[in-house]
Amino acid sequence: MKNKIIYTILIFLTITKFSNASDGYDLWLGYHKINNASLKTNYKKIFSSIYLKDVQKNATIKLIKKELTWASKLMIEAAPLFTTDSNNASILFRIDEQNKDINEEGYGIKAWTKNSKNGVVVYAKNEVGLLYGCFALLRAMQMQEDLKTINTISSPTLKIRMLNHWDNINRTIERGYAGNSIFNWHTLPDYIDKRYIDYARANASIGINGTVVTNVNANALFLTPEYLLKVKALADAFRPFGIKIYLTARFSAPIEIGNLKTADPLDSAVIKWWADKAKEIYDLIPDFGGFLVKANSEGQPGPQNYDRTHADGANMMAAAVAPFKGIVIWRAFVYSNETPEDRVKQAYNEFKPLDGKFSKNVLVQIKNGPLDFQPREPFHPLFGAMPKTPEVLEFQITQEYLGQSTHLVYEAPMFKEILESNINATQKVVDVLEHSNNELTGISGVANIGSDINWCGHPVGQANWYAFGRLAWNPHLNANEIAKEWIQQTWSHDEKVIDTIQQIMMASYENMVKYMTPLGLHHIMGNGHHYGPMPWGNTLNREDWNPVYYHKSDSYGVGFNRSISGSNAIAQYDPFVQNKWKDSSTCDEKFLLWFHHISWKHKMKNGNPFWDELCYQYNEGVNGVRKMQKQWQSISMHIDEDQHHQVKQLLQIQLNDAIWWRDACLQYFQTFSKLPLPKGYPLPAHDLKYYQSLNFPFAPGNGK
Amino acid sequence: MKNKIIYTILIFLTITKFSNASDGYDLWLGYHKINNASLKTNYKKIFSSIYLKDVQKNATIKLIKKELTWASKLMIEAAPLFTTDSNNASILFRIDEQNKDINEEGYGIKAWTKNSKNGVVVYAKNEVGLLYGCFALLRAMQMQEDLKTINTISSPTLKIRMLNHWDNINRTIERGYAGNSIFNWHTLPDYIDKRYIDYARANASIGINGTVVTNVNANALFLTPEYLLKVKALADAFRPFGIKIYLTARFSAPIEIGNLKTADPLDSAVIKWWADKAKEIYDLIPDFGGFLVKANSEGQPGPQNYDRTHADGANMMAAAVAPFKGIVIWRAFVYSNETPEDRVKQAYNEFKPLDGKFSKNVLVQIKNGPLDFQPREPFHPLFGAMPKTPEVLEFQITQEYLGQSTHLVYEAPMFKEILESNINATQKVVDVLEHSNNELTGISGVANIGSDINWCGHPVGQANWYAFGRLAWNPHLNANEIAKEWIQQTWSHDEKVIDTIQQIMMASYENMVKYMTPLGLHHIMGNGHHYGPMPWGNTLNREDWNPVYYHKSDSYGVGFNRSISGSNAIAQYDPFVQNKWKDSSTCDEKFLLWFHHISWKHKMKNGNPFWDELCYQYNEGVNGVRKMQKQWQSISMHIDEDQHHQVKQLLQIQLNDAIWWRDACLQYFQTFSKLPLPKGYPLPAHDLKYYQSLNFPFAPGNGK
Repeated sequence: MKNKIIYTILIFLTITKFSNASDGYDLWLGYHKINNASLKTNYKKIFSSIYLKDVQKNATIKLIKKELTWASKLMIEAAPLFTTDSNNASILFRIDEQNKDINEEGYGIKAWTKNSKNGVVVYAKNEVGLLYGCFALLRAMQMQEDLKTINTISSPTLKIRMLNHWDNINRTIERGYAGNSIFNWHTLPDYIDKRYIDYARANASIGINGTVVTNVNANALFLTPEYLLKVKALADAFRPFGIKIYLTARFSAPIEIGNLKTADPLDSAVIKWWADKAKEIYDLIPDFGGFLVKANSEGQPGPQNYDRTHADGANMMAAAVAPFKGIVIWRAFVYSNETPEDRVKQAYNEFKPLDGKFSKNVLVQIKNGPLDFQPREPFHPLFGAMPKTPEVLEFQITQEYLGQSTHLVYEAPMFKEILESNINATQKVVDVLEHSNNELTGISGVANIGSDINWCGHPVGQANWYAFGRLAWNPHLNANEIAKEWIQQTWSHDEKVIDTIQQIMMASYENMVKYMTPLGLHHIMGNGHHYGPMPWGNTLNREDWNPVYYHKSDSYGVGFNRSISGSNAIAQYDPFVQNKWKDSSTCDEKFLLWFHHISWKHKMKNGNPFWDELCYQYNEGVNGVRKMQKQWQSISMHIDEDQHHQVKQLLQIQLNDAIWWRDACLQYFQTFSKLPLPKGYPLPAHDLKYYQSLNFPFAPGNGK
Repeated sequence: MKNKIIYTILIFLTITKFSNASDGYDLWLGYHKINNASLKTNYKKIFSSIYLKDVQKNATIKLIKKELTWASKLMIEAAPLFTTDSNNASILFRIDEQNKDINEEGYGIKAWTKNSKNGVVVYAKNEVGLLYGCFALLRAMQMQEDLKTINTISSPTLKIRMLNHWDNINRTIERGYAGNSIFNWHTLPDYIDKRYIDYARANASIGINGTVVTNVNANALFLTPEYLLKVKALADAFRPFGIKIYLTARFSAPIEIGNLKTADPLDSAVIKWWADKAKEIYDLIPDFGGFLVKANSEGQPGPQNYDRTHADGANMMAAAVAPFKGIVIWRAFVYSNETPEDRVKQAYNEFKPLDGKFSKNVLVQIKNGPLDFQPREPFHPLFGAMPKTPEVLEFQITQEYLGQSTHLVYEAPMFKEILESNINATQKVVDVLEHSNNELTGISGVANIGSDINWCGHPVGQANWYAFGRLAWNPHLNANEIAKEWIQQTWSHDEKVIDTIQQIMMASYENMVKYMTPLGLHHIMGNGHHYGPMPWGNTLNREDWNPVYYHKSDSYGVGFNRSISGSNAIAQYDPFVQNKWKDSSTCDEKFLLWFHHISWKHKMKNGNPFWDELCYQYNEGVNGVRKMQKQWQSISMHIDEDQHHQVKQLLQIQLNDAIWWRDACLQYFQTFSKLPLPKGYPLPAHDLKYYQSLNFPFAPGNGK
């Protein structure tokens, strides 16, 4: 009798993980099981004898032990064994204060073989260095590297590698697209959320050593005793991971919480207030990093309210923290309320003359480009323009203008484009950061982290956190390799999966630039929330908050003339750089409309008329997303079903949005160009009025 | 040579789960591994042959299959096998439309033995009933029950078992303490977050069959076409789980989004607008549940703005949804802006006269008590007072007044206290709900769910969601048993752990009442956010929003006289009930100050003077928390380290808060009683002024 038909459940193969097993919370620290048998055997062997000193005495060493234990259990399904005999350990963690090959934070990992036994030594000058070495070792294992030949020396060149959280006291996040702030001030200091630990752990694993936990649009309440106790609790949690905490300082705090009548940086009561406040903070947090300040910018108070310079303000605060080795990071993101000057010129104009006037413990933090984190900007002309001042490069990891958390955009190619930009014939931006004349060096990233289970909203968003950290540690890594590292640690060991996701990621940045702002277009997003296209926007009070200010479309053409015949912003760059951009016929076309007002009929280098090329670029962006979708589909059987479905849905949103951008922008620009879409070009689904009628009062990240 | 000392890692034993393995996301559906060998063998045997019809055709059946697959893999580490031969299946899912033992949503599970083979039959009248049966079967297995003897029949007596989410369009949650709203309206309808599915799944597992996804303080935008598409996407996701979606309806929507000049329920244009709107909704969502309405309450618009009654308003909306079998749930939580009447009397006064005037598809939703979700209230006098009107009991699961998400408070004893309250000599509140004269019956719970990884903030908070659902299904279950079920499914199979957590949970409600509002005190929390004690509060515009209105302390005594000599609110109850409470010397002391203004020297039933008893009660609450701490500590080695630590930290906050409540309240009341603390009583750490100076501008749940 064959009336009993049992069929196995095919679907089961793809649901080997339950519920949140694949929820992204573990980031790149999932320590997935090693399937390669010989590798596993070797890993097992070396994990059978680990020498780690001072576990009971040192909190950082304790963390190393914990991390090794987790990783071992998960990757090789065995608990590691620890030994107190350093001579016979197969993994030896050694502090070597005199080592000249590494710097204070650096580490080395070296394989050895002796009497047919093999193992590795991890060395550093201190415990945090060993922690970095531990994470590097585990990364190598996650990358399935053979530990018999490992030989690495690595030291970060930038001393300050920090995240900036634009997180508010009520847990909203300015430009946050991944839920609320992970910092729950209400339950601090008594409740240390596990997230704080996992956050610090993730940062340490990529070498981030500082975090500003409060919004640059600052709230003075954070400097009150009650809140400082909360900050101290976080600092205590972060310390073993080698992470210093910083706060944003509201310049008018002496008035708001200090009962003073002024915040004038030259006023003696104000000077004393900040000095006392600094002492109060350092009494609680001896290794407090210092202050990050946004002053006289977009409504924030600052020294100019009292006719003082940015240097006056920064130096006053710097003096307050100097006795405790604190620093002040002063943001160069300023533009005047009054001056009718091209906005991209203003930071340079304001800050260049101040070079040499800042105290030694002041750094000036400069956004990657001169405007505001656009999909593509030329590098900021201030880089290299203040040789006496340590400069910090500020990237925006959170995708304010880059599709927020529904678009897959891998940012490392953008980071690299800026870092590798020549500021003159011999120097790149990265050289300015690394080979500063100054003792302090640094890089900042505006965090894309929130309370979403997977931290960053889009499942691929965490790659940008990862890439930022890796580049902060070593700006010479390449974007492609970083992507591979992240994928292999996060998604799969399968070559096809790795290749496919890597291709998707590597194409994503250019795709996004093309469907949003090709050929040098910029700031044509929706007002306020910056969600979606709004090139027609011209209703905001400030001229330079409006899209029409930036693209200047008219019947002749489109683009902002920043050449010598226009605002001459180009003059802020070195002649070597000017030569690349100054002439519209030779200008690097990715910045064409950034520097030039271009005729609709301008002949492009490829021979296309400009209008046609603009249309083609938009459509290439759209087709690029279609390609990403196909590639993603091709690995559907090879990765977790839920995660796959999640990204699939998001790619569909991204495609819809790309089409929306293309059709809305082209129809709008067409009202000026009066030119037809190229032959065979896809027709828009709606007319311009429809796109102009769309309204997103509750788009996220906008404080509503 | 013994210079090689290898020591195993003790700590490792407690870290067998990695990172988010114990993060609470899985709720009570963790399906923990069965360790009992014979049980496991039997479970394995019966999972080797499951008969489930129409998997390809029916979405709910598909879910059953998925759930069985997960559960089997996790509990017994084997994939289940499915068969198409119903005669030889060891688990048989059978639809039996004619079965008279169960109702439309009920299910039965019955063990059978035949020829030394055993198995179970799960039967129901439809697919959703089978889903309920599936979850009941899996619950029994999680409870390690022997399936050889299982024999259960279960049918819910209440037809509407729903959650009310007070979630706003911008993802804030009014009275939410577990992060932001899980409903991300910005990415809907295109992005179906896995959370929506897991939310529906959790609800279905406890029998919840309806959800109101929008705040009762309603936003008319949810009724616009754009948002209705988003609601439809949720409805589609919830449907296979047997969950209907409802919306709150803003009464003035015809003006705000309909361009009408009035929202008068008797105006023909208004009537047509709602009828058209209902049709529009049902075209998208054929099984749309209906509307929940808060009208003419705390600033919300309503029919009284047009001199119409609540019945006029409700009936107009009910007529709009009636053609589609929709319902309107009208909230009785109203109190006038003008009337100087005792606030707790107003809902009764307003609604009782309307009994019989509502359309058949209108239900009136009544909070458990007559005031506002206080730690303890007598049952609402409207229960049973409107025999012609279906009444819905509304509980608040979210702990607005109950310590928010930092206090461990298991609410089932409170739910039970209300359900089991006699409304007269023969009937209880539960009888009013179950044996209504009306076709419709229901119960609602204001959700405590948010975007926190563990859904409910406090790790024990999810027990309240669970308990609400279980009691909604069967109000006759007891709190203790429900606690046990939840613990066993969530925390451990270990008897000691189960017993200990159960004891903690079962004591928690009374403890909280004692350290916050013992002996009938009520509404003495901080203004607005309701966080912490503020019995001195008297600065709000409305008299009946101020704590002093509720406790009425003076040199004679304390308490609100609601007896015949006072506001006579007691007259709203049946004489049988009045007898228990009307006389201060015999009144059930848990409601003493609710109904009476009591002398500081009043002699309590135990012989203590009232003032001393008040002091003792507060301190018993504090000591109760201390006991909870000790009990929790005693199981530290038996449960996940991270989870244990989390609750441990929260219990410390709870203890600090309990002490704060005790010391602040007693010192304040002492300014009236002028009596000393009892001998040996713990001295407060601060003076009254200190407590009065505390200020929590960013307490959560308050829309700031």
